[in-house]
Amino acid sequence: MAKSPETELPLKAFGWAARDTSGTLSPFHFSRRENGDDDVSVKILYCGVCHSDLHTLKNDWGFTTYPVVPGHEIVGVVTKVGINVKKFRVGDNVGVGVIVESCQTCENCNQDLEQYCPKLVFTYNSPYKGTRTHGGYSDFVVVHQRYVVQFPDNLPLDAGAPLLRAGITVYSPMKYYGMTEPGKHLGVAGLGGLGHVAIKFGKAFGLKVTVISTSPNKETEAIDKLGADSFLVSKDPEKMKAAMGTMDYIIDTISAAHSLMPLLGLLKLNGKLVTVGLPSKPLELSVFPLVAGRKLIGGSNFGGLKETQEMLDFCGKHNITADIELIRMDEINTAMERLHKADVKYRFVIDVANSLSSL
Amino acid sequence: MAKSPETELPLKAFGWAARDTSGTLSPFHFSRRENGDDDVSVKILYCGVCHSDLHTLKNDWGFTTYPVVPGHEIVGVVTKVGINVKKFRVGDNVGVGVIVESCQTCENCNQDLEQYCPKLVFTYNSPYKGTRTHGGYSDFVVVHQRYVVQFPDNLPLDAGAPLLRAGITVYSPMKYYGMTEPGKHLGVAGLGGLGHVAIKFGKAFGLKVTVISTSPNKETEAIDKLGADSFLVSKDPEKMKAAMGTMDYIIDTISAAHSLMPLLGLLKLNGKLVTVGLPSKPLELSVFPLVAGRKLIGGSNFGGLKETQEMLDFCGKHNITADIELIRMDEINTAMERLHKADVKYRFVIDVANSLSSL
Repeated sequence: MAKSPETELPLKAFGWAARDTSGTLSPFHFSRRENGDDDVSVKILYCGVCHSDLHTLKNDWGFTTYPVVPGHEIVGVVTKVGINVKKFRVGDNVGVGVIVESCQTCENCNQDLEQYCPKLVFTYNSPYKGTRTHGGYSDFVVVHQRYVVQFPDNLPLDAGAPLLRAGITVYSPMKYYGMTEPGKHLGVAGLGGLGHVAIKFGKAFGLKVTVISTSPNKETEAIDKLGADSFLVSKDPEKMKAAMGTMDYIIDTISAAHSLMPLLGLLKLNGKLVTVGLPSKPLELSVFPLVAGRKLIGGSNFGGLKETQEMLDFCGKHNITADIELIRMDEINTAMERLHKADVKYRFVIDVANSLSSL
Repeated sequence: MAKSPETELPLKAFGWAARDTSGTLSPFHFSRRENGDDDVSVKILYCGVCHSDLHTLKNDWGFTTYPVVPGHEIVGVVTKVGINVKKFRVGDNVGVGVIVESCQTCENCNQDLEQYCPKLVFTYNSPYKGTRTHGGYSDFVVVHQRYVVQFPDNLPLDAGAPLLRAGITVYSPMKYYGMTEPGKHLGVAGLGGLGHVAIKFGKAFGLKVTVISTSPNKETEAIDKLGADSFLVSKDPEKMKAAMGTMDYIIDTISAAHSLMPLLGLLKLNGKLVTVGLPSKPLELSVFPLVAGRKLIGGSNFGGLKETQEMLDFCGKHNITADIELIRMDEINTAMERLHKADVKYRFVIDVANSLSSL
């Protein structure tokens, strides 16, 4: 077990970190700051396993600093609050998502759009006052109250964890781009961690939801278990042709490189295609369908804190959670291999409190 | 002078047509229908020369049927009205734009979006009841009243003609995508027929307008004559870098293949890039800037009749016309060569009534 080479902070913490581009996670001792006047300390109960974690472990995006403790779909219980903290009390169930700090003075922060703050600090793999942030594959976290959200009483803590990233990443663009008009037809492209919660949000907004997927064998589950209204196999040219011009909105969660043209063809006049996957290669785009059908392609990147709370409250009201496979901390490396192959229904969540402590 | 091989209609008409993919225009006798109960007959005074005319002459898009008389920026005077026509009177100055018929029953027609009607009939080069439509490079036209607009009293007829296509093509997306908030910053990419009127609309809406162009020698005119606030040379990497994240909207009028990435970089958070040029090759698009900046790319295709009238009224109120070079009908082939080289400031308009009749 290695020690962090960074500035030593007063509190001893323990988690699992990757040390190099192999991405292999192993036990890791590090330190966290004292709970300040505006801070909330959270004992971590569950942490979702996001595709971004995998990208970061392997340094796919080129900005990983090792060692890194991933995890930004954190659900836990408050163990300490600073003197200025009024919103949270010891014993509260709370969530921590993608960011733990922003400048709080820029135009974006002032509009509750901290996710677009140029100085935001990510929950893990970010420099922070001479140290590095470490995420939720660990025993506890200390976070400024502004970046903590209340977790709804009626939702299971484990299945709710992925809402902190996967949930807000689809909820926010649906709200921003106006993809919530009851009766409209939503296509969900890609049926993974993001896609499967997009179905649930779509149904909660009163939309007709069609899953667009390359895998015909996912049809039964998409409809019977996840609540989709229909299923479109994107590799079937005849069915794709028959579905041309039938959808009002598409949320594209596919992270592999793919053509946008077949998806644009599925949209009606004034249709909206919102992409939240992050293919690393440029995509080909002909502007003809945009012009001829007044269609738009938009993007969106998770959500701000106010909207994350709104999303969780919405999930509480509509009983929306992720479909998960709960794993032990020491199963994480196998889980990452399966995630790489998209072999998960539909999100791994680590049972942190019960399996980290037993090491 | 060839005769049309089509069904002979009762009225003899005369114009200039292209006979083959050389695109060369020459005098042409053809026929038009009688003025029906809902029709308006228009003696053509002026007709703008649109880039679409050139594409059609040369069959660039692959659906030209020869002979073809182009022209869909028509301004003229009413010479006859059918018994059901109440809106127009003989002697009125009117305009005819891109379409002369649509189904009038579909969802799009019912929303005054005839430009997206699947059964629309273009002003030229469209099949129509066993004949072909012919456009405004001719002496007169007979059009259903629904597809005729009133021309504002205070605008010059020649410089106003390009509003029927170039004007509505930039006005409609500015309204639809909400690019009209006073004080916001609009980039106009490409300074041709569409771009130069986009500057004028931008200023009329109270926007700050920056022209984005490859040609530094256009700067003085863009600012002093057309009213732009600033000018950005897109081939200057330092200036492009300095302008990153400064624009709220961009209207992209470039019809040559180009990368969208530098333009997306100029946009602020929530920025909107609307493309109205029609490059024939697909463009490369990375979704990262869309996601990281919640930006969108949208398209739009001219406008409906109601909106075209609204646009003309707006132009009347704000004294917006195109900057034109008035040419004689027999100068059209030279003008087309110059248009191909973008050597026009900024729109050719044919002085139809005065030069067609003198042949």
